[in-house]
Amino acid sequence: MSDFPKKVKINEEGPREGFQIEKPPVPTDKKIRFINALSGTGLKHIQTVSFVNPKRVPGWADAEEVVMGQEYHPGVEYAPLWLNPKGFERAMQFRDKLTLRGKVSLSASEAFVIRNQNKNLDENLKMQHEYMKQYKAAGVPVDCVGVNSAFGCNYQGDIPTGRVLEAIGQCFEVAAAHGESPPQIRLSDTMAWATPDRIKRTVGAVREKFPDKEVHLHLHDTRGMAMANAYAGLEMGVASYDAAVAGLGGCPFAGHAGAAGNICTEDLVFLCHEMGIETGIDLDALIEAAQVAEEAVGHPLPGKVAKGGNLARLREKAGAVH
Amino acid sequence: MSDFPKKVKINEEGPREGFQIEKPPVPTDKKIRFINALSGTGLKHIQTVSFVNPKRVPGWADAEEVVMGQEYHPGVEYAPLWLNPKGFERAMQFRDKLTLRGKVSLSASEAFVIRNQNKNLDENLKMQHEYMKQYKAAGVPVDCVGVNSAFGCNYQGDIPTGRVLEAIGQCFEVAAAHGESPPQIRLSDTMAWATPDRIKRTVGAVREKFPDKEVHLHLHDTRGMAMANAYAGLEMGVASYDAAVAGLGGCPFAGHAGAAGNICTEDLVFLCHEMGIETGIDLDALIEAAQVAEEAVGHPLPGKVAKGGNLARLREKAGAVH
Repeated sequence: MSDFPKKVKINEEGPREGFQIEKPPVPTDKKIRFINALSGTGLKHIQTVSFVNPKRVPGWADAEEVVMGQEYHPGVEYAPLWLNPKGFERAMQFRDKLTLRGKVSLSASEAFVIRNQNKNLDENLKMQHEYMKQYKAAGVPVDCVGVNSAFGCNYQGDIPTGRVLEAIGQCFEVAAAHGESPPQIRLSDTMAWATPDRIKRTVGAVREKFPDKEVHLHLHDTRGMAMANAYAGLEMGVASYDAAVAGLGGCPFAGHAGAAGNICTEDLVFLCHEMGIETGIDLDALIEAAQVAEEAVGHPLPGKVAKGGNLARLREKAGAVH
Repeated sequence: MSDFPKKVKINEEGPREGFQIEKPPVPTDKKIRFINALSGTGLKHIQTVSFVNPKRVPGWADAEEVVMGQEYHPGVEYAPLWLNPKGFERAMQFRDKLTLRGKVSLSASEAFVIRNQNKNLDENLKMQHEYMKQYKAAGVPVDCVGVNSAFGCNYQGDIPTGRVLEAIGQCFEVAAAHGESPPQIRLSDTMAWATPDRIKRTVGAVREKFPDKEVHLHLHDTRGMAMANAYAGLEMGVASYDAAVAGLGGCPFAGHAGAAGNICTEDLVFLCHEMGIETGIDLDALIEAAQVAEEAVGHPLPGKVAKGGNLARLREKAGAVH
């Protein structure tokens, strides 16, 4: 039977995910306007910028300017992404403004890391130890372990649940070697191989082996399964999700390979609210933020509720009619 | 616990649903090309054309030409839609080519029928009797009862489950008055109010009251819930769905009010196949048909798997790599 959570926590990744893929890059002032709109929605965790190589990701060449230009609301965490020690150093410049949180992260797919980082899993494990040292030295808390490609990989194929459990175990071993035991396990469906039954099977196995840890899901909608997968997560009691307002990061245009956006925040919030699950988020404000996002990128985005409308408003109107 | 069906039956509505909203209308030869592409996918039921007032729906002014121009594959049912006696008469001209099936259909929402047809539910019931007489006289089988707005209505608000059961009962009474007991109950989420929990509640109640009837779902993705709703249907053992290739009928562009497409056929087939549920459909052929649909309408459509790719193909490649 279902074990729905009473409250769901959403980590907004729209700005960071969405703005990195746009060509030409979104102007700095539009990014800031969007982040400021998100700040008033009730979202408590927003990944705003990416400190990555501006030559490789021109969309985030202005990360420092965005950090300096945006508003900071009390009670809201604004977090940066980094992918290497240099990016981490850039992020560290803004510790007064941004919330830095470390993570021990491995891919469940060796084929993927070999292909993308020219490293095997052992070398990747060593790198995670280096990160841990860096975080410990900087006093940055390490609050989760994460497994990428946890449900399948375009290069490796299906990922057996046993491999996911093994990768989580390896992450916790790395953390333990540095005196840490992060409270959260993040399972990422990096290449959109998950289907609801697979979500249930994997989450069930992870819960059984790591009963004291919180499970968090990062879902992509590349094959249209994100909402069904989130619902399967809710049925398993998963109460923590990444999401991106308006489905940023993806694109309905066939020209954008894969249309690989994150699950859309307002659609997920709509599902939760309709099911009586709290999010602490104002859906109407979120829909407005989605419209600001579309203006920022200058083209339609895949989110649905922002176009289809909040049923709460239609209920009010219907109530007024009868 | 879940009670997934072994096999799912899909009624394709893409051509009829999709082409009616396009402006300017899709050229006849492109409609025919798309219908012919669908014929080779393994789909057994395709709603191809709409015999509606060409002044009100210019997109289907060429219904007769499409019927005359398309190919007919053995074992595939090609069905028309009609919305009034005149449309039914037009459809009857093509009984040698098309499969005509009658339906007793009511809206769960009185506010909706008053607004759209200027009739109350009693008047609507009388009209259903007239239809039944017409079908019986013509020898057209009546194989289902249908309830529209079964999960909620923009004008009436939430629809209590009791009202859905009542409407189904009224439909069966109409059918019985003409000596019929249709085997199938179609529940339509006409205005996209359904969420997975509501699907389960309603389907559960319908099953309990009408245990001998097959439940069929018609789902819209206006608020991004269609796939989660279909998954909830599968969990309830529902084995019959309407769907539209490429998500035809909707549109990712904000300019199209509501983006109210049906659930996307290839995305639903993908979900089924990944869960080991048979559909009898060739997903690759369906993805090709979705591309033909995009060419026909001349703009991107919301379906995801056609862009994200069939995992079966990636599995083969990954298998070849290792």
